[in-house]
Amino acid sequence: MMLWTAAEPAPNPRRVNIFARAKGIDLPMTELDMFKGEHKGPAYLAKNPRGQVPFLELDDGRVIAETIAICRYLDELHPEPPLFGSTAFERAETDMWTRRVETQLGTAVGQAWVHGHPFTAKMFTQVPAIAEAARGTATAAFRWFDKQLAGREWLAGDRATMADIALLTIVDFADWIEVRAPAECADFAAWHGRAKARFV
Amino acid sequence: MMLWTAAEPAPNPRRVNIFARAKGIDLPMTELDMFKGEHKGPAYLAKNPRGQVPFLELDDGRVIAETIAICRYLDELHPEPPLFGSTAFERAETDMWTRRVETQLGTAVGQAWVHGHPFTAKMFTQVPAIAEAARGTATAAFRWFDKQLAGREWLAGDRATMADIALLTIVDFADWIEVRAPAECADFAAWHGRAKARFV
Repeated sequence: MMLWTAAEPAPNPRRVNIFARAKGIDLPMTELDMFKGEHKGPAYLAKNPRGQVPFLELDDGRVIAETIAICRYLDELHPEPPLFGSTAFERAETDMWTRRVETQLGTAVGQAWVHGHPFTAKMFTQVPAIAEAARGTATAAFRWFDKQLAGREWLAGDRATMADIALLTIVDFADWIEVRAPAECADFAAWHGRAKARFV
Repeated sequence: MMLWTAAEPAPNPRRVNIFARAKGIDLPMTELDMFKGEHKGPAYLAKNPRGQVPFLELDDGRVIAETIAICRYLDELHPEPPLFGSTAFERAETDMWTRRVETQLGTAVGQAWVHGHPFTAKMFTQVPAIAEAARGTATAAFRWFDKQLAGREWLAGDRATMADIALLTIVDFADWIEVRAPAECADFAAWHGRAKARFV
């Protein structure tokens, strides 16, 4: 098994690293040089046609890409501690929260990065209106998560899950590009402290 | 168990309906009136704070929202025919493809709808530049899926899965808002024909 990945602080490599560490899995990994576009070369495109890292190559050559899918696979191989859930309901609940994280906040942070950051200006045709709308969407999402986290420790109530890892990695990357929760989001800030203490 | 949902052709209700039918599950359901905003009233917001349908309410009051999470839960309760997979690898592979469908095409189609359709003009502050970029992203995604589908029947190779249902419901909704695959995407068109024959 080989995880083809890249150096942190890239958020997707970091997400799988955090998950593997929380599981106590010592994952063989090779870092590709994203800045040289190594992961988009023909050898790696043949493995993951999306041209992204990380992806997991099994010993028989089969590949699993997409961070949540990689973690889901590792979770089935190493069930303890459970980070997706131990019952059908818990697994669905984790999936629900992970999707809420990705669709409400993850997409917006990604668009703020692609369309609004000086670093990506050379790589993409930036549309400032997209970045501006994305920042507004992110702010609304932070407020929504703040409200949901009132009176609970983790997204899925009393269980720390993959959804918390997904949110943590997005939030820390968002901070790096100066997309941040409004100061009054106290329940969100408290969750962030717990998530860092638990996973980082 | 109650599926709180809405009338087709709304794509998310349709996705769960198609899944349940493929599984032979007779799901109790109640349609809310989305045009009157019934699903955003306090009684339903207390059940699903995202204010979206469909969501599944269990007999004990617990709720699962997000279409893929709902289908994942139903799949565990009714394993046959398998639409997420029968092994850890297959389940991860289905998740990978479902994510590729949603992140590459689903998000773009959603933004083309929200920011570019006359129907949504009264509901959202539309930014035409976002709709334009989203249409370009969707075209690129159609071409990418066309390339991946060359020489295979389904996204996950020889297995029809949740990922195909996700793609089918997005593509049919996209067609309705006039976001369509380029005419030369023959492998994509062939897949679309198979997916309709298998699931609709």
